Amino acid sequence: MRDFSTDHSALALNTATLGHNLDGHGAGWPVERVIDACAERGFGGIVFWRREIGDRAIEIGNRARKAGLTVAGLCRSPFLVGPMAPRPSSALRDDFQASIDMAAGLGTSILTIVVGGVEPESRGVEDSLKRVAERVAEAAPYAAQRGVGLALEPLNPVYAGNRSCLVTVRDAIDLCEAIDAANVGIAVDVYHVWWDTSLARELRRAGKYRILGYHLCDWLADTRDVLLDRGMMGDGVADLKALRAAVEAAGYRGFCEVEVFSAENWWKRDPAQVLDACVERFRSVC
Amino acid sequence: MRDFSTDHSALALNTATLGHNLDGHGAGWPVERVIDACAERGFGGIVFWRREIGDRAIEIGNRARKAGLTVAGLCRSPFLVGPMAPRPSSALRDDFQASIDMAAGLGTSILTIVVGGVEPESRGVEDSLKRVAERVAEAAPYAAQRGVGLALEPLNPVYAGNRSCLVTVRDAIDLCEAIDAANVGIAVDVYHVWWDTSLARELRRAGKYRILGYHLCDWLADTRDVLLDRGMMGDGVADLKALRAAVEAAGYRGFCEVEVFSAENWWKRDPAQVLDACVERFRSVC
Repeated sequence: MRDFSTDHSALALNTATLGHNLDGHGAGWPVERVIDACAERGFGGIVFWRREIGDRAIEIGNRARKAGLTVAGLCRSPFLVGPMAPRPSSALRDDFQASIDMAAGLGTSILTIVVGGVEPESRGVEDSLKRVAERVAEAAPYAAQRGVGLALEPLNPVYAGNRSCLVTVRDAIDLCEAIDAANVGIAVDVYHVWWDTSLARELRRAGKYRILGYHLCDWLADTRDVLLDRGMMGDGVADLKALRAAVEAAGYRGFCEVEVFSAENWWKRDPAQVLDACVERFRSVC
Repeated sequence: MRDFSTDHSALALNTATLGHNLDGHGAGWPVERVIDACAERGFGGIVFWRREIGDRAIEIGNRARKAGLTVAGLCRSPFLVGPMAPRPSSALRDDFQASIDMAAGLGTSILTIVVGGVEPESRGVEDSLKRVAERVAEAAPYAAQRGVGLALEPLNPVYAGNRSCLVTVRDAIDLCEAIDAANVGIAVDVYHVWWDTSLARELRRAGKYRILGYHLCDWLADTRDVLLDRGMMGDGVADLKALRAAVEAAGYRGFCEVEVFSAENWWKRDPAQVLDACVERFRSVC
């Protein structure tokens, strides 16, 4: 297992950790200031959200690299199924392609996919997962052409109805196998998988080429809001060392991306202090 | 698969579906009135909560049977681990035994166990699950002596921090095998397991003697409160027919227990209407 206690070059910031600027949360720092603040502190990577990029993908990607950061990912594809997926399907296809184009413009090799919930008028997750497989398989060749990997992220089962019918690493790997494209893999997020006792076994089944991302935060024992009350690493009950050991035992050596949605706590703090906390916690408890 | 379209004698009411009388929810019907209203409508069973029983277990059990109902279960043991478990452990042991005694007094063969969350100062679910196994193994012989089966209920992973470090049927069966007592099994609740694509396979591994209960409700796509916003069967996205098929393919032939926590909807309605809805939905969509 990698030793981060004196080296946090594997640390990446997911900008959501500073509050989504457009939501009235966070300090409203412009993207450039976030880039510089991460670079000054020795982060190795940064992950953006589409809303922050607009039509400046190439410019922002270059800006990040010039500061010394790898653009480690883009959040995210549109929902591909479920009540919040764009309709009609041509609009979905266009938006999916636009997200791939933005990732390519930023110069990142990873677009995160949150698949969306259960399809209207259907029951259970299985039919919806089949449709996800079709839609990802359809987009994968274009993404490959543009140098973009598609990272299927299983979410906590609490979101299965409306945000992600994909809720386990097991199902995510099964999807990858069904899709069978070299540029389709999974993202593993502590918040979503910390409870899964089969995780290490399933990740070994995935193998290193399928694991495209590892996301850090913590699960607070008394989570008050399943969307916006994530914990900073060390403040919750996830076994962070064991989770990283499982990911690395499967061969993962990429970035560890801090992604803390925390409307009532971290998003209310000074972003500089939040970034300092990310570094300190990453070195000490992850 | 059993046909319930013209026969709902397998239907049981979990009294929480009418609102917990002591919480200011529901119509505040006394237990006797709930018993009579279920019997009049042809329910086959009823499941009580300890708070409703007090020191009248034998009396209430007899009253239910006289009305033609089986007492199909008692909710529930104290949390056995985690932040809300009784302390010290002697208090936990006493309360666990009191819940077993109450089940025996009611004349029910099933006590539901919600195991509790992650133990204070520990991380991840695995150490806590080991402690659960020890505590259930310790209580099982006494429960057997009193004719009571212990039904380990995995809860939705959203509760893993504070209410149940046991979150999958897979882990529940593993616990049963570790405990290895004939009167320890599992309860399968739609709300908690509907998203699990491995359910049918895991239930086959459990076998009929391990499945002590099957609980009905529905998962609303836009669940607003993970504790108190359950849906009535048919109003959500769980594949109820497929779930029951999986339980019955594993050999289960027991009661189907409706348990709908719904502070803002069903608990605000006339209990008579709620019971009628339970019967109608059970016959049509379960």
